[in-house]
Amino acid sequence: MSDSTWETKITDVAPNRIRLRGYPIDNLMGKVSYPEAFFLAITGELPKPEYRRLLDAILVSSVDHGVTPPSANAAMTVASTGNPLNAAIAAGVLAISRFHGGAIEGCMNILTQAVGKMQAEGQSVEQAAASIVRQKKEAKSRIPGFGHRYHTDDPRTRRLFELAKEEGVWGQFLEMAVAIEKALLDISGKNLPINVDGAIGAVLCEMGIDPEIANAFFIASRLPGLVAHIQEEMTTQKPMRRIVAADARYTGSSERHIE
Amino acid sequence: MSDSTWETKITDVAPNRIRLRGYPIDNLMGKVSYPEAFFLAITGELPKPEYRRLLDAILVSSVDHGVTPPSANAAMTVASTGNPLNAAIAAGVLAISRFHGGAIEGCMNILTQAVGKMQAEGQSVEQAAASIVRQKKEAKSRIPGFGHRYHTDDPRTRRLFELAKEEGVWGQFLEMAVAIEKALLDISGKNLPINVDGAIGAVLCEMGIDPEIANAFFIASRLPGLVAHIQEEMTTQKPMRRIVAADARYTGSSERHIE
Amino acid sequence: MSDSTWETKITDVAPNRIRLRGYPIDNLMGKVSYPEAFFLAITGELPKPEYRRLLDAILVSSVDHGVTPPSANAAMTVASTGNPLNAAIAAGVLAISRFHGGAIEGCMNILTQAVGKMQAEGQSVEQAAASIVRQKKEAKSRIPGFGHRYHTDDPRTRRLFELAKEEGVWGQFLEMAVAIEKALLDISGKNLPINVDGAIGAVLCEMGIDPEIANAFFIASRLPGLVAHIQEEMTTQKPMRRIVAADARYTGSSERHIE
Amino acid sequence: MSDSTWETKITDVAPNRIRLRGYPIDNLMGKVSYPEAFFLAITGELPKPEYRRLLDAILVSSVDHGVTPPSANAAMTVASTGNPLNAAIAAGVLAISRFHGGAIEGCMNILTQAVGKMQAEGQSVEQAAASIVRQKKEAKSRIPGFGHRYHTDDPRTRRLFELAKEEGVWGQFLEMAVAIEKALLDISGKNLPINVDGAIGAVLCEMGIDPEIANAFFIASRLPGLVAHIQEEMTTQKPMRRIVAADARYTGSSERHIE
Repeated sequence: MSDSTWETKITDVAPNRIRLRGYPIDNLMGKVSYPEAFFLAITGELPKPEYRRLLDAILVSSVDHGVTPPSANAAMTVASTGNPLNAAIAAGVLAISRFHGGAIEGCMNILTQAVGKMQAEGQSVEQAAASIVRQKKEAKSRIPGFGHRYHTDDPRTRRLFELAKEEGVWGQFLEMAVAIEKALLDISGKNLPINVDGAIGAVLCEMGIDPEIANAFFIASRLPGLVAHIQEEMTTQKPMRRIVAADARYTGSSERHIE
Repeated sequence: MSDSTWETKITDVAPNRIRLRGYPIDNLMGKVSYPEAFFLAITGELPKPEYRRLLDAILVSSVDHGVTPPSANAAMTVASTGNPLNAAIAAGVLAISRFHGGAIEGCMNILTQAVGKMQAEGQSVEQAAASIVRQKKEAKSRIPGFGHRYHTDDPRTRRLFELAKEEGVWGQFLEMAVAIEKALLDISGKNLPINVDGAIGAVLCEMGIDPEIANAFFIASRLPGLVAHIQEEMTTQKPMRRIVAADARYTGSSERHIE
Repeated sequence: MSDSTWETKITDVAPNRIRLRGYPIDNLMGKVSYPEAFFLAITGELPKPEYRRLLDAILVSSVDHGVTPPSANAAMTVASTGNPLNAAIAAGVLAISRFHGGAIEGCMNILTQAVGKMQAEGQSVEQAAASIVRQKKEAKSRIPGFGHRYHTDDPRTRRLFELAKEEGVWGQFLEMAVAIEKALLDISGKNLPINVDGAIGAVLCEMGIDPEIANAFFIASRLPGLVAHIQEEMTTQKPMRRIVAADARYTGSSERHIE
Repeated sequence: MSDSTWETKITDVAPNRIRLRGYPIDNLMGKVSYPEAFFLAITGELPKPEYRRLLDAILVSSVDHGVTPPSANAAMTVASTGNPLNAAIAAGVLAISRFHGGAIEGCMNILTQAVGKMQAEGQSVEQAAASIVRQKKEAKSRIPGFGHRYHTDDPRTRRLFELAKEEGVWGQFLEMAVAIEKALLDISGKNLPINVDGAIGAVLCEMGIDPEIANAFFIASRLPGLVAHIQEEMTTQKPMRRIVAADARYTGSSERHIE
């Protein structure tokens, strides 16, 4: 063994055998969902059964947000100059950063800090939430994951919270998120409801996900939307056109529902 | 409406309402899986129920292949110089191209051509497969999706085919893939079993997916693996180290199975 | 020496010694310009002295084209979501592709083909140009490097041609470019003057540059512009704003000249 | 003028007219070098005449460092999977980050801080250098731009300093860099000579370049090297090979010099 040996704990590959975190891939196929394999790959363990539906819901929640987000714009722009699919996706992924998707990680850090302080100091959830809101108010800094420039009552938040309750994944991080929302109104007089980033962040905290990796969930979630916009750009638009999101007209399917 | 109006059929966004291909996102959450939402985003319609398990299995099949693939190397390299997660993922995505993952699209084109010819000329599957193999033999070109430099009997192919049969998604494209594998042995004397790219390609053909978009499935599938390697690099390795895949030693979990 | 040994002809590095194509870097510093080092790196030889001023002029010619090009848009968009400089530059580079900068390579291929045919068949420049224009007219395909959607008399083309004459780098490729411009008017009745991409392509042909590498000159040329737009975005604009190029107002320095 | 109007000070484009920071591009072509246009684009003003040779020397200094740097590896890896040139360059640019090229910015921040403190507190250069070295020693943090894992006496540093003296661009930042090198030896007993990143950083400080933009100079400088490695990979190597830098053998031109 040379000095340059290094260790990896992710995947063991030998001829005709691929084991992810110990599980043969073919053993996982048909038995675990893609979001469960995602969770396994990044944490080293399969998620609890009650996480399964929530993991799918998280990844479905941000699957697309139309033509206006920077990631869609960057992806369409790179597609419009004649690139292959992977380059256009890469440009979209590059745009998913601190101010676009990044509120998930930011919110997780705040919730982790608030819950930690609550436990250390024997506070109630309400006290801890009020304390963090006051602190941010004084520092004149925003709390990531609260408020949305477009949606005042985000249906994705409501649904994700509903599912978290149904599945029994409702703990102190979600309580803290709700308490912070209330404290923002009470203390700062600001109506800043938990947005989808904040809701995802709170659920990922309950699942024990490392905040530093949280952006991966948003990137995975948005990937199908990026692909759809790239494909639409490539097949229906002229190369090098001026892409102005505000000029887009939705001409797709009218509203429909699944049971 | 100005001259610059353009049309999009993907997502309709209004305050407190996001509809993907007509379905409110919150209606989809908890009811469809992420792979189903992926299918909906790129094709415009929800997949048939029998596709659900297969779509998960396809995305699980290529979730990681250890430290050697170019995508893992590019992602780890970019992570090792101090970049944020999204930039490292983008580098990994850039490496997923014609010679890495691209065999899915290549195989789909061959299968589409072979099945089309079979139907147009009233051939049997065996005749059409033999014809395509002879044609490629003369042109001295390889058929993408057959043979693997590492695995001679890829367990992922076997499992994906098993699942396709179980779910009743076994049609002429899968028949053609099997017939081509046999024809390669009979005509060229080459043992080039269908690899995982070929198997995925054949199943995507059965589902009516456009070959030009096929690379998106491989990119989505490999994403968790890229994230895991990036995270491992960031948390366990020194910046700017020489990353030599051959020096890696697997020190993770020993073999285990789920029921 | 193991089986895996591979060869590189670019740079030889040893402690306290770096030689590019044989030349110690410190020998080059202060003696050759950056464009000359660029030429050396990619061709293996220093350029002829008469190329020096032209190489600088080529790289200056496309240094920026305002806020509308896709590369500027992609770079600004990625900058606006909180990325570091390198990620924003990478997004801009991704946008420089077939339909944005790619006409340089396309034009070089046409010019190479036309000059080759002229020599092989003993034609005059005018005959060869007419032949290629008729051929493209029948195929209803455009000749890359001719015509611009914005500039009808591109000052960069005029200046680059002037410099090529001054420096004595005016040969059959530049003659052919001029002859094709004339033939387009005579045969197709179309006023499609050589644009800056075509002019750069013709000069690079004279210098013996491989068309497959031509895009590198455009990328290098545009790099300062990308950096300037990224910096402006980061320092003067709010994160995640809607970037609509048509709404930009130039408020910089008024016209000035150097002697 | 709508509310969405925004300002740009970089380039003014009108039909048949492109003005960079006020200067018509065709006025600049043939009169200023590419590095001067680079300086103009990002600072808004043409550099002083004495900067011209130094700007070229800076961009030549880091033009390539062989097959081992992460940027070369990322670029070659992405090239080896069948990507176009721009995608491979983008991957290389992504690898140029905090720990690869980033020492330029880091060193500029230290030098700026040290010179500022010196002036504010009326210290000598030696005192200010000693103070910063002691401070970093206590914090057990390294000073970026000093020491190299490979070169103990970097010929690029020596040459760049020589040129800075020749051109009369030797001021307090370069003095401070030299004083810090000496203080590191005297106080910490460490021989950490100024490396090429540190030398570039010190010269850029003398020119008044914003440290936040410094990485752009390294990216521009390394671009030709990336292109050369990409081209070599594409034209001489098999797709998807294992790229192990340590196995590379230099087979290019033997040592040569220009007068």
